Formats: sequence, structure tokens, C-alpha cells
Amino acid sequence: MDVFTAIKERRSCRAFLPGPVSEEAIEKLLQAAVWAPSPMNAQPWEFIVITNQEVKGKIHSEVEDRRKSLAEKSGWKWLERYQVDFILSSPAIIAVIGNPDKTGADRFLEGGGMGYQHACAAAIQNMLLTAHALGLGSLWFTLFDFEAMRAMLGIDPGKEPLALVCIGRPSGEPLQMARKDALERTRFIR
Amino acid sequence: MDVFTAIKERRSCRAFLPGPVSEEAIEKLLQAAVWAPSPMNAQPWEFIVITNQEVKGKIHSEVEDRRKSLAEKSGWKWLERYQVDFILSSPAIIAVIGNPDKTGADRFLEGGGMGYQHACAAAIQNMLLTAHALGLGSLWFTLFDFEAMRAMLGIDPGKEPLALVCIGRPSGEPLQMARKDALERTRFIR
Repeated sequence: MDVFTAIKERRSCRAFLPGPVSEEAIEKLLQAAVWAPSPMNAQPWEFIVITNQEVKGKIHSEVEDRRKSLAEKSGWKWLERYQVDFILSSPAIIAVIGNPDKTGADRFLEGGGMGYQHACAAAIQNMLLTAHALGLGSLWFTLFDFEAMRAMLGIDPGKEPLALVCIGRPSGEPLQMARKDALERTRFIR
Repeated sequence: MDVFTAIKERRSCRAFLPGPVSEEAIEKLLQAAVWAPSPMNAQPWEFIVITNQEVKGKIHSEVEDRRKSLAEKSGWKWLERYQVDFILSSPAIIAVIGNPDKTGADRFLEGGGMGYQHACAAAIQNMLLTAHALGLGSLWFTLFDFEAMRAMLGIDPGKEPLALVCIGRPSGEPLQMARKDALERTRFIR
């Protein structure tokens, strides 16, 4: 699939059909991830591919707790109604783990040291685009507690579970969210 | 260009040929950027396209100062030798500005509130892939001081210049940096 088509057509998918994602497809997503750029090519990422239903259940229960507490904290109505069952129904979940020790010279800048997170985000975007090209739906999900996820997945204390990427064949057509025109957000210094 | 080819072939480009990048190409890059996902589709990005040589000169001089001070702070030898003349020679520089107010519910999480930066990183990755597909070289650059860049480009105090993306026709073949195999960095919970 053409790169611009994949970029423009990809949408967040929150409803998946049952049935596994092939090992081959999972491997392709991971290969796409690691070709992202990173500061000093430090490749500050690790991945955990979760297909075990019991573990998905534990994650779902943490995410559900977190959703409720965030709904209270924020007072945001949509969080009260937000359904997180896609955690249970997505055939595969890829946890993306970032390593803060593998950031670049940005660590010496004020407000810096986030380069490793940016690299992981670029790696995730590569996965989402590749998933779309393979006919798979995907969701970039972050509403969970770092510590809880670390404990649940056995992640080193020095590393950070930055996102869960849900993967599977999409059920129905994802919501077609629009965008503000790029030029409205752009200024030119000619 | 096929999405996986673009992902795998894209490299950081630090040497550009003279000659402008077409307005059409710049617009395509910006359009690609805004189709990135973002928390609550808040689209927390703005862009400044810099083609003015005097402004590029000012940025170059800030980056050069920063490089020297980072070389001292870090003691890293490569930073002493690092050439940043690509700031001057890249035909266009796209500054990517993030808006922390436009992050999602992650703002209520401990260690959270970084969703807007992740979204901007995904937008940048979209630009780099699209640039490669258009035959353009690109560089994701972050070694500058936020405050200095804000002042230089007239950015609101509440917003953050997260990266400079240098764009132009590549001069020669970029360095072919390798990657560790994805499966070496992956654990499966089946």
C-alpha cells in the first residue's frame, strides 16, 4: 500500500473480529517498528506481544480501574461511558517499552531527555501504518498506570511501558475522525 | 512508494543539494503530519516552515552554541566533532510545535501528560516517510534550547518547539545505520 494512502486512511480501531493475528503479521509489525529513527540510533525500545487471554484479562481489569479513577479525577463525561472491552477482544496486544537510558544528547537539555519516548512513538506509528497496509486494525492506548503494568508484565523498574498497541482484524468501519487543514496550523517564514 | 519500503529505506540525511523544495511537496508533508493519531484527536501540533536564509543563520548559530555546551556537559567526543551545517544548507526547515494543553486523559496519570509529544512524534514520522517517498532527504533534529527557539521563532510561552525537521534533496547516499533484529527485543506472552 502506498505510504500516503496508509497515513491518510489509518484510523483507531476499537472493535476487533475474533481469530488470531498471524505470527508473520506480528513479525512484520515489529520489523517496521525498529526502522524508526532514534537519537544516536540507540533503539530505545522493547516489545511484549500478549496473546494470552488470562493476561489480557488482568490488563483489562487494571485499565477499567484506571478509567473509573480518571473519570472521577477529570470529571470528563466521556470517560464514564468509555468502553475498554477492546483490550479483551483484540487478538494481540503489543506493549511498547521505552528505555530512558537510551535517549540522546537531549538528556543534557533543560526539559529534554524525552528523545527515547519520541523514538518509541515513531516506532508505534510505523506499526500502525504497517498494520493498516496488512488490512489489520490497530489502537494506540495509554490509559493505564506505569507501575501496575510493570508489575503485571514483569518489566524492569528502569524501563517504561509507554503504550499498548491493540491489533486485530477490524469489525466494521472505524470512526472517521476528521482533521483541521494542515495549512491552518502552519506559518511560513520566507 | 510502498509503506514498508518507505519505513525501511528512510535514513537521516545530513547533506542537502541546493535548490528549493516545491511548495507542493512541503504541503504534502504537512498534510501527512496531521493524519497522525493524537489523544482525543486534539491534534496538538503547529508548524513553522522556514526557508528564510537569515532565520536559518540564527538557528544555526543557536544550534552551534548548544552543541558546544552539550559537548562540554556530556564529555562526549562525537559532539565536539559534530557538524551542524545542514541547518544552513537544508532548503527548508519545518519546526514542529507541541501544545501541552492538547494532551488527553493521560494528563491525570502519574508520569503522564506526554501524549501530545507522542502525537507530534508520530506526525514527524509521517513527514519523514512521505519525504522519502517524494525522493527528499530529511532529518529529525532536537539539539537546541526551547527558550532560545521560542524567542527566535515567536512561539507562545505555553507551546513547545519539539523538533526541527530539515528537508531537501539529498546530496549523496545517507549513512546506512543498521538495527538490532526486532525479535531480539521482543518477548511473547502466549
